[in-house]
Amino acid sequence: MSATKLSADDLKHILTFTVTLAREAGELIMEGSEAIQLAGSNVDEKKNSVDLVTEYDVRVEELVKKEIFTTYPDFKFIGEESYAAGSRSPLTDDPTYCVDPIDGTTNFVHGFPWVCISLGLIYKKVPVLGVIYNPFLDLLYTGIKGQGSFLSRQGGPPMKLPLAKNPKPLATLNHALIAVEWGNDRTIDPLTKRSESFHKLAGDPDNGVEGGRMAHSLRSLGSSAMNFATVAQGGLDIYWEIGCWPWDVCAGMVIVQEAGGSVTGSHAYYEAAKDLPSFGEPNEEILTGRKYLVVRAIGDSEKEKGRDAQKRIMGEFYSTTVDYNVS
Amino acid sequence: MSATKLSADDLKHILTFTVTLAREAGELIMEGSEAIQLAGSNVDEKKNSVDLVTEYDVRVEELVKKEIFTTYPDFKFIGEESYAAGSRSPLTDDPTYCVDPIDGTTNFVHGFPWVCISLGLIYKKVPVLGVIYNPFLDLLYTGIKGQGSFLSRQGGPPMKLPLAKNPKPLATLNHALIAVEWGNDRTIDPLTKRSESFHKLAGDPDNGVEGGRMAHSLRSLGSSAMNFATVAQGGLDIYWEIGCWPWDVCAGMVIVQEAGGSVTGSHAYYEAAKDLPSFGEPNEEILTGRKYLVVRAIGDSEKEKGRDAQKRIMGEFYSTTVDYNVS
Repeated sequence: MSATKLSADDLKHILTFTVTLAREAGELIMEGSEAIQLAGSNVDEKKNSVDLVTEYDVRVEELVKKEIFTTYPDFKFIGEESYAAGSRSPLTDDPTYCVDPIDGTTNFVHGFPWVCISLGLIYKKVPVLGVIYNPFLDLLYTGIKGQGSFLSRQGGPPMKLPLAKNPKPLATLNHALIAVEWGNDRTIDPLTKRSESFHKLAGDPDNGVEGGRMAHSLRSLGSSAMNFATVAQGGLDIYWEIGCWPWDVCAGMVIVQEAGGSVTGSHAYYEAAKDLPSFGEPNEEILTGRKYLVVRAIGDSEKEKGRDAQKRIMGEFYSTTVDYNVS
Repeated sequence: MSATKLSADDLKHILTFTVTLAREAGELIMEGSEAIQLAGSNVDEKKNSVDLVTEYDVRVEELVKKEIFTTYPDFKFIGEESYAAGSRSPLTDDPTYCVDPIDGTTNFVHGFPWVCISLGLIYKKVPVLGVIYNPFLDLLYTGIKGQGSFLSRQGGPPMKLPLAKNPKPLATLNHALIAVEWGNDRTIDPLTKRSESFHKLAGDPDNGVEGGRMAHSLRSLGSSAMNFATVAQGGLDIYWEIGCWPWDVCAGMVIVQEAGGSVTGSHAYYEAAKDLPSFGEPNEEILTGRKYLVVRAIGDSEKEKGRDAQKRIMGEFYSTTVDYNVS
């Protein structure tokens, strides 16, 4: 076991380092995007684009790993590309970077600018620091456990999250803007359960849709880290996805938590955990559970506190949707 | 009938005026967004937000109308708010501005930054000029019939659309990133047909989804004008929606057309029009038909020209999805 201990001040320094790293990685991501656009001129599009995405995924991860190990040689590292390559050490109490070099790869390959790098830091098995940077739109989200989370737009000053001073109440799903995703596993079972869930969330119960919630609307944006960040900001009310990996969500979990949002795991996890005092806070089980439900900060109303309102909304959400597993 | 005639040079001047107007309107939209965020602190959230959205929708449209009639007193005007208020004169040959003051109102009320003003100009019943401006992300799209379309990011220089020099081939829907929307009418018939269509577009035919196309993925972004603009740019391959109005699509139709994209109407319209020489170009029937299918520019491959490839993709799309009507 490493003896590394992280103080609040250490985390501040690590954040400065991580933001610089995110911007450096962002330049490489932009270079990759241009290479992919140029490759589009070739006839054999598929091979070139996919190869280039993999190439830049690996290159960004290598850059990030190198910089981290130079500055913090005792830290551990979990990354999408390393994991895919077979390096799957279990979580320890050591400081561990958990990184998705390019989150939103489908958007990336198509040139749709909802793409980011997601850099999270885990300490004692809990996410404690997160940086999410979208280099296409120059949106930088940061968070440190216990120290708040922030958004800086186009190099402007950091704005505290959520952006609204008193986050709006959210009476029912009917008022909610909800992010859901179609994912990669489109085999019949997960696809059908996803379709049914979306249908009920969107459907008008007064006009034939049994159990419909008539959500304000559904969005599908294609980047889990950006979904977490946008919920933290208050620009989405809810985000639900099954099938993500820790590197997709680690940074976002800190940023959401520090913005007053809540995160939970699967339907069953929610049922088991909803009455615990720590409900809604990130933990190892949620981080690694591959099922995520995130709700934004909700201001106190006359009737209930924000955390109670989040719990009620999560309950309504999970009574409307069905759980499933993906490969 | 007015005797107003518009030359290519006139359109250039009108574009300069329209861009200035879009940026001015953008400031008012940003002011509205802040007002909505502040209103969120009140308990009676729904009333305040919806009232404020309507208020700013009206204020932006009034601003735009005033400036247009001051500079171009002979031009006509179609706008969402005027139309809702009962001013529904039919299209003439006169130059007619067709304007959505705030496109993506659900995003706007929630503070999700995928929002724009859409300013189109119709002449002799055909869209000839379009400006789409997202003030949150400072993305400006412009197009003039016969003179190309452009994107300027964060005040940077105009970049010709599509961004890729030789737009990639698109062999099948399997390779496509497709924008679809859940719309406002969620009654059982349109919702079911929408859900079924999305299910088939997303589904894996090799793993139980009969007729599935396994699209690369589906996106739902909540602004039709931004969807048109993003297809023009090449960041989305396809956009399909039923239920939009002319002011949602007018500017986008020009920008897509000038970027080498194609637009068609309903399933039946497509069948009837697919062998006409003008197939894929904007016209009055498509503009006012409330059903839109848009495909990005596709580079020549060894086998077929871009327009033929677009037609083939549209055929594949319409054989996979079902038509429906909304209120």
